[in-house]
Amino acid sequence: MFTAETYLARRAKLCEKVGQGLMLFVGNIDIACNYKDNTYHFRQDSTFLYLFGLQVAGIAATLDAETGEATLYMDELTMDDIIWMGPQPSVYDQAAKAGVSKVLPTSKLSSVIAANINREIHFVPTYHGVTTMRIAELLGKSTKEIESGASVKLIKALVSMREIKEKCEIDELRKHMAAGREMHMAAMTMAHEGRTEAEIMAMVSRMSLKNGGPVSFPTICTVHGETLHNHGYPNTLKNGQLLLVDAGSESPLCYATDHTRTSPVGGKFTDQQKEIYQIVLDANNAVAAACEPGLTYKEVHLMACRVIAGGLKELGIMKGDMDEAVMEGAHALFMPHGIGHMLGLDVHDMESYNEVLVGYDDEIQKSTQFGLASLRLGKRLREGFVVTDEPGIYFIPALIDKWKAEGIHKDFINFDALDAYRSFGGIRLEDDLLITRHGCENLGERIPIEIEDVEKEVNNNRFNNI
Amino acid sequence: MFTAETYLARRAKLCEKVGQGLMLFVGNIDIACNYKDNTYHFRQDSTFLYLFGLQVAGIAATLDAETGEATLYMDELTMDDIIWMGPQPSVYDQAAKAGVSKVLPTSKLSSVIAANINREIHFVPTYHGVTTMRIAELLGKSTKEIESGASVKLIKALVSMREIKEKCEIDELRKHMAAGREMHMAAMTMAHEGRTEAEIMAMVSRMSLKNGGPVSFPTICTVHGETLHNHGYPNTLKNGQLLLVDAGSESPLCYATDHTRTSPVGGKFTDQQKEIYQIVLDANNAVAAACEPGLTYKEVHLMACRVIAGGLKELGIMKGDMDEAVMEGAHALFMPHGIGHMLGLDVHDMESYNEVLVGYDDEIQKSTQFGLASLRLGKRLREGFVVTDEPGIYFIPALIDKWKAEGIHKDFINFDALDAYRSFGGIRLEDDLLITRHGCENLGERIPIEIEDVEKEVNNNRFNNI
Repeated sequence: MFTAETYLARRAKLCEKVGQGLMLFVGNIDIACNYKDNTYHFRQDSTFLYLFGLQVAGIAATLDAETGEATLYMDELTMDDIIWMGPQPSVYDQAAKAGVSKVLPTSKLSSVIAANINREIHFVPTYHGVTTMRIAELLGKSTKEIESGASVKLIKALVSMREIKEKCEIDELRKHMAAGREMHMAAMTMAHEGRTEAEIMAMVSRMSLKNGGPVSFPTICTVHGETLHNHGYPNTLKNGQLLLVDAGSESPLCYATDHTRTSPVGGKFTDQQKEIYQIVLDANNAVAAACEPGLTYKEVHLMACRVIAGGLKELGIMKGDMDEAVMEGAHALFMPHGIGHMLGLDVHDMESYNEVLVGYDDEIQKSTQFGLASLRLGKRLREGFVVTDEPGIYFIPALIDKWKAEGIHKDFINFDALDAYRSFGGIRLEDDLLITRHGCENLGERIPIEIEDVEKEVNNNRFNNI
Repeated sequence: MFTAETYLARRAKLCEKVGQGLMLFVGNIDIACNYKDNTYHFRQDSTFLYLFGLQVAGIAATLDAETGEATLYMDELTMDDIIWMGPQPSVYDQAAKAGVSKVLPTSKLSSVIAANINREIHFVPTYHGVTTMRIAELLGKSTKEIESGASVKLIKALVSMREIKEKCEIDELRKHMAAGREMHMAAMTMAHEGRTEAEIMAMVSRMSLKNGGPVSFPTICTVHGETLHNHGYPNTLKNGQLLLVDAGSESPLCYATDHTRTSPVGGKFTDQQKEIYQIVLDANNAVAAACEPGLTYKEVHLMACRVIAGGLKELGIMKGDMDEAVMEGAHALFMPHGIGHMLGLDVHDMESYNEVLVGYDDEIQKSTQFGLASLRLGKRLREGFVVTDEPGIYFIPALIDKWKAEGIHKDFINFDALDAYRSFGGIRLEDDLLITRHGCENLGERIPIEIEDVEKEVNNNRFNNI
């Protein structure tokens, strides 16, 4: 359970790691959609959630690394607020939940910062212009200086803490996996000719919202799975197509689920689809079988790529030595992305900090090779990491044409064999794994993934009348 | 239909109205939720939509008020874009749809602005920090100067055009009203004990998304209708409560619907609920009966308030002369908001410009009186306006206690009678009206609103098994 002690302990540990200076944490505000008062759903900043747990817009905090003192900057509600937003807990009640005893009005933040301006002021990278401008004003710096001035020391300290999930976090994640499962079960059951991508995406959103939170990232729901981040929903499903759904739900405490399933429209995979599907499933299972503390995720990625390349060689799509092909990056024509990323308060956990500081370290450096360059997590796994396991095989016509025309990796790829796959689309299968002491655990009840189980789920057609 | 000519004509008219200088339009980018690459759904800026119609992130445009020349700043896709986002129309095809023949790479915008820096540069107010910072950098000004430096001339020209809806806009709005209706019919049918606000809100979202767009504003779905902008969904419905749902859908071209209905949980209004409901319905109907070009919306608002005050007097809740009571603002204890606002590309249309420049003019000034101060639209109605008609009656315990303690408007309010309504909640009923030559039209098929029709819709319980 998350209690005031949870946050007190985290802040104490962070102070110890950072050692000196004042840490400034600016929570998120309501973000405008098409005008100031028409906002997107409020999402608190993940760092703020991790250290204070308060889902309140417009608040800020300071944390003195030397004295350990935490101060929250938030205002009492006015009568107008109560009329428009209803009664809310007092700021002291809110602060108490975060284990903070010192609360100041928001207007005091600038004088507190001014009084500490000669000390080192640590802040994490910003991703909202309004936050950048606020910090710039508080510190008397330009927005450019803020954009490049985040504290690497603070980032590294936070990464070292947030990457190891605590029991309360694992419980929250595990519990919310049921919502992720419900989203995907609904999508599968709707994979029928005549349905639209939009209505399936709509049902997926509903399943997330009714379980307490919005989707954890924009849902991918497409019969063009070969487009990796497809955010439009223009198509109507046709029998014989593959429906790829990559979707997750945010829990009440803002932890993310992230799964992908690929279903046969109409309920029956073709033989060609089965062959490719099984390779992806083998790769997915191989990752889950291999993961354990000490292994680098880069090696897991390459191992999964070898499974994929090996399968494609058996089908006559690739040729030659598959270890060598993967080393050279030839498989990336079919799997141009990474095998996975960390998962937690963010679906790409901590990505606001800096992808390299999160997923790599002095030992494992990020590659620039096409495909491997997209791997977000390369470093050694540790007990308590939560990672995604998401291999895929895609046939991307524009990329195939380019490689063929330029003769890229022609020693490893039978370009002629690819004509039969030109309109295949793409398959991805994604689960969420908790790294345990001696291996890993697939979080939550596994969403149907075996060929016959997926076909069965499509064929139950539970929602045929809605 | 929206064609290239639609946008060409609008831009030509705008150039004529603005007369001189260069207009700069910065479209919206994908806005981060919890890190840069995890974005909220993309929503193009409404001004950009109105003048160019392109739902493409990160583009900008200039429009020379003197020569009429329009230039779009947008970049061709890279191979990486195609892999991640799929094939897209070329920038020239996109520009052609907007009737623009001149396209420059985004990187050229700064030199174009630099070359025109001694001319008047018009821009509309910003609501995203990132846009403010971009314009500041382009113009070599501070973000504060940009925040206060929007062109009143440009705003007034745009308001004078956008407030009169063209045929293509009315067609789009009218067509999309069916989606708004479906959302509310679903919510009504789910108003049963044991359902949660969250699952009804989820179904409302689904109905919007499957019809082509997200909700046009954060859905209000609450058994505490007395909280005017209630954005939490923590409650489980109980028989005897009122479920207030204020929700709208955004059409494929980004026009908004906006309706409110209030349903009896369990399917049967109590006598007390019926009495209050009927007063709100009478006010709603009175507005639709009264609206016509030439009338000020401030007078319509006051007329609706008199209907409400009169009804409350009959129930013994108010007392004295109701014309006087409304003039003094006593009714605002029960209806603290305005009767409505303009509707179009924004649910509060054009609110990003400036509420007063949109809803008021030299003739009709904004009031500071509690209640009337919340009226967004006060000026004279004209043929082609689309407005909401949304009276309500609320019993807000905190506000009642305050007025009673301070004796506010005690000559008009029987505070003792209010004890029986302390846990009543609130009722609002909202339709969307198009002002026609001689009156107005309720846009789309009217959502059930008569007491018996609403009860019937709840009792059909269509979704009892999902």
